[in-house]
Amino acid sequence: MKRRDFLANASAAVGAVAVSAMAPGAAIVRGDVHSSAGQSAIRVNAKRLNSHLTALSEFGKNAQGGVSRVAYSDADVAARRYVMELMRAASLDVSVDAAGNVIGRRAGRLPQASPLLFGSHTDSVPEGGNYDGPVGSMGAIEVAQTLAERGVVTRHPLEVVIFQNEEGGLVGSRAMAGELEDADLALVSRSGKTIRDGIRFIGGEPSRLASVKRARGSIAAYLELHIEQGGTLDRDRIDIGIVEGIVGIDWWGVTIEGVANHAGTTPMDQRHDALLAAAKFIEAVNRVVTSVPGRQVGTVGRIQAQPGAPNVIPGVVVLSLELRDLDAAKIATFYAAIQREATAIATASGTTFSFKPTNANAPAPTDPRIRQHIGGAARLLGLTTASLPSGAGHDAQDMARLGPVGMIFVPSVAGISHAPKELSRPKDIENGANVLLHTVLAVDRP
Amino acid sequence: MKRRDFLANASAAVGAVAVSAMAPGAAIVRGDVHSSAGQSAIRVNAKRLNSHLTALSEFGKNAQGGVSRVAYSDADVAARRYVMELMRAASLDVSVDAAGNVIGRRAGRLPQASPLLFGSHTDSVPEGGNYDGPVGSMGAIEVAQTLAERGVVTRHPLEVVIFQNEEGGLVGSRAMAGELEDADLALVSRSGKTIRDGIRFIGGEPSRLASVKRARGSIAAYLELHIEQGGTLDRDRIDIGIVEGIVGIDWWGVTIEGVANHAGTTPMDQRHDALLAAAKFIEAVNRVVTSVPGRQVGTVGRIQAQPGAPNVIPGVVVLSLELRDLDAAKIATFYAAIQREATAIATASGTTFSFKPTNANAPAPTDPRIRQHIGGAARLLGLTTASLPSGAGHDAQDMARLGPVGMIFVPSVAGISHAPKELSRPKDIENGANVLLHTVLAVDRP
Repeated sequence: MKRRDFLANASAAVGAVAVSAMAPGAAIVRGDVHSSAGQSAIRVNAKRLNSHLTALSEFGKNAQGGVSRVAYSDADVAARRYVMELMRAASLDVSVDAAGNVIGRRAGRLPQASPLLFGSHTDSVPEGGNYDGPVGSMGAIEVAQTLAERGVVTRHPLEVVIFQNEEGGLVGSRAMAGELEDADLALVSRSGKTIRDGIRFIGGEPSRLASVKRARGSIAAYLELHIEQGGTLDRDRIDIGIVEGIVGIDWWGVTIEGVANHAGTTPMDQRHDALLAAAKFIEAVNRVVTSVPGRQVGTVGRIQAQPGAPNVIPGVVVLSLELRDLDAAKIATFYAAIQREATAIATASGTTFSFKPTNANAPAPTDPRIRQHIGGAARLLGLTTASLPSGAGHDAQDMARLGPVGMIFVPSVAGISHAPKELSRPKDIENGANVLLHTVLAVDRP
Repeated sequence: MKRRDFLANASAAVGAVAVSAMAPGAAIVRGDVHSSAGQSAIRVNAKRLNSHLTALSEFGKNAQGGVSRVAYSDADVAARRYVMELMRAASLDVSVDAAGNVIGRRAGRLPQASPLLFGSHTDSVPEGGNYDGPVGSMGAIEVAQTLAERGVVTRHPLEVVIFQNEEGGLVGSRAMAGELEDADLALVSRSGKTIRDGIRFIGGEPSRLASVKRARGSIAAYLELHIEQGGTLDRDRIDIGIVEGIVGIDWWGVTIEGVANHAGTTPMDQRHDALLAAAKFIEAVNRVVTSVPGRQVGTVGRIQAQPGAPNVIPGVVVLSLELRDLDAAKIATFYAAIQREATAIATASGTTFSFKPTNANAPAPTDPRIRQHIGGAARLLGLTTASLPSGAGHDAQDMARLGPVGMIFVPSVAGISHAPKELSRPKDIENGANVLLHTVLAVDRP
C-alpha cells in the first residue's frame, strides 16, 4: 500500500471512532470523563493504532520486511513528517525543539502544573524492525488522540515527545537532560552526517541546544511504552512488563598477551596461547555471571586474535567485555570475580590480562509510585504483569535525571529485536497503549 | 660489517684452512680419505661456516637483527649470488635449473650412480631470522668444500641444492618432484610478484619446468641440516635431532552458527552464543590433542566473530583448526574426537558446527637407514641425539617422493623461529654440519 492510501485510511478510522464514541451503546458519556470512575472505561482505538504502525513501517521499508530508518536519513525525515501529521490530527500543538525532538503539546487544567511527558522514538538501527520505538510513538499519539476525542482535560499539560536519534546514542533525550556535549555533535552518525549536521537536517538548530535543556524537577513524569526486545514476557505469556529500571552498562577492552609461535614446531606444553587463554576467559565470564540468580547479563561480543594465521599460535587477543545489571554494586562484584578468574588463567597459561574501561552508563531506576500506577492500570484492564529490568538503554534513562520515570513493556515474539523479524502482536500493542493511557491518567491525578 | 669485507674474510679463512690441512699436526693425510677409518677424523671448518652465515645475514638485514629476504626480492637475488660464489669456491659446478633452484654439482667415482643431494634454502619469511634455511645451506656448502679440500671423491655424484622459495610453499622442491602446477605459477608471492614472474626474476624459465622434474628413484638420497624451530633440543640439552619424518598437516575451516541477539535484553539462559560455543570448542581441541602422550599438535590460530559488536551476542564464528602428526591415522582419530566434542557443544548450546577441509599435507617419513647413519655420525662425533618429528614443513617432504630422505636438526635457542630473535649457537651449527658430513659419507658407502 502506498503512503497516501494509509493516510486516507487513517483519516477514515478517525472518523469512524468519533461516530462510535457518540453511539448509544457507548458506556461513557462526555460528562463522566473528569471522574476517576468515569475514565476507567476509556480505551484506545486499537485498529487506528495498528494501522498507524503499518503506515509508519513504509518509511525506510526494506526487502526483508523491516526498516532501515537511521536518524538523519531521508526516511527518518519522512517518518517525522508523518508523526507531525498524526499529532495535529490528535489535536496536539506541534513543535520541533532545537535538538530536533518532535513535541506535541496539549494544555492542562492547572496553569502552574509541570508537564507530563510520554513518548518514544521513530528512528531505527540499520536493518531494524517495525516495533522498537514505533510502538511507543504511535501508542503515545493514540493516547493523546483518545483523550482529545473523549474530551478528557488533564490537570498537567501533556507533551508527547518523539526523541530524535535514540538508536545512535539517545541524542535527543541527552540534549533535554543537558548532557549532549559539543564533542558529541562532531561524531559521525550512521546516516553519514555528523550529529550537528543531522540536527540541522531534521529542523533543529545545534547552536541553540541550551534552550532544550530542562531543569531537574521541571517535569511531572516521563512515561514510555516500548517492546521488551527480550523474550521473557513472550515465553511466560505475560501481557505487560513493569520496568524496574534501565540497567547500568559497563564495557571493558580486554587484552590478553601470550607468545606467538610456530604452530608446527612448538609442543603443546611449551605454548603461551593467547586464544586458548581467551577461550577459558569467555567461559569464565559466562560461569561468573550465571553463578547467582538474577537478570544480570555478561557478554563477550568482539574478539580479535593476532597474528591470525591457521599455522601460528596467537600471541595477542583483544576482546570486549560487557556487564549489565540494575544494581551497580552487583556489576562491580561480578567484575571483581571475573578479574580473579583472569588472574588464575594468566598464571596457569603464562599469559597476561589487562582491562581498560571503555564505557559506563549508571543504572536508572524507575519511580516506585509510577510502577504502582502501571500495575493498577493493568489490573483495571485485566492484564497480567511481571516486573523486570530493561536490559536495553532507553531515552527514559536520561529523563530520569529530570523527574520520575516509568516504562511499560509489551511482549516481543521470541525476543527478537533490532532485526526485520522483530514482532509484537496487535493485541499486545493495544494492551500496552491502554496501560499507558490509564497510567497517564493515574499519574495526572492529585 | 659490509658485504665486501665479509667476502674478503671468507677468502682469508679458506686460505687458513688449506694451510691447516697441510700442517704437520693434522691426523689425516691425503692417502687415508678413501677408507672409512681415514674419513672418520674429517671435520668441517667451523670458523668459516659461521662466518659465511654472518655474511649471508647481511642480505635483507633489518633493524631488529633479523632478515626480510622473501623469495624473488632483490635481497633474495643478492643472497643467491653470494651462494653461487661460495659454491664455486667449494669447487662445485654451479647451475640454476628452470625452476630457479641453485645446484652445485661435483662428479663421483661411479659413472652410473644416481646423485646424492643435500641442501636447504636461503629465502626467509618477512621479518624472519638468520638460521631457518641458512644453517643447512651454508652447512651443505661447507661439507662440499671440506670434502674438496680433503680430496675425498665420493662414489655418487654430489649435488648441493639451494631450493628457491621454501617459505612461500616449497616451490623449488615441488618443481623437482613434478608437483608445481600451472595454477601455482599465477599465485602472488610475498615479494608482490607472481611465482611465474619470480622464477624468471631469479634466472629460471617457467615454460621449461618439465625439465626440472626428476624421476622417482633417480636420487640416491636427499639430506637436509636444519634448525629445529621448536624448543625441545634446547630444553633437554640435546646436540642433534634425528628427524623421524615431516608431520602431516590438516587444516579445516570451522563455522559455528548460533543466534545474534541484543546483549542487554536476551537473558543468559535464552542465548545461542556462537562465541561461547567457540570458546568451549577451542578448549576441547586442546584437551583432545593433549589427552594422549605424543608430539601431535592442534591449533586454533584464526577466529572471527560476527557481527562483532560489544553489545551483540555473536551469531556466527568462523575459526581455523590445524592438526599435525607424523601418523595420518592419529590425525584422523583426533579429528573424529574433536568432531564428537563439537557435536556435544552444539547440542548443549543450540548452535551448529560445520567443518570444511581447506588444506592437507600427508606425513613424509624419513628413511630408517638414513636415520641410523645420522645416529652413527653423531656417535662418532660424541654428540647426544634425540629422535623427533619435524612439526614444520620442509623441502625434504617433496624430495621424499623421489627417494630416501633424512633430516638433521640442531637446537633453536628457546624454540624461537620465524622471528628476528631466532638463534642457533655456533657450536651447534658446527656439530650439525659435521653430522651432515659424516652422514653423506655413510650414505655414499656401498
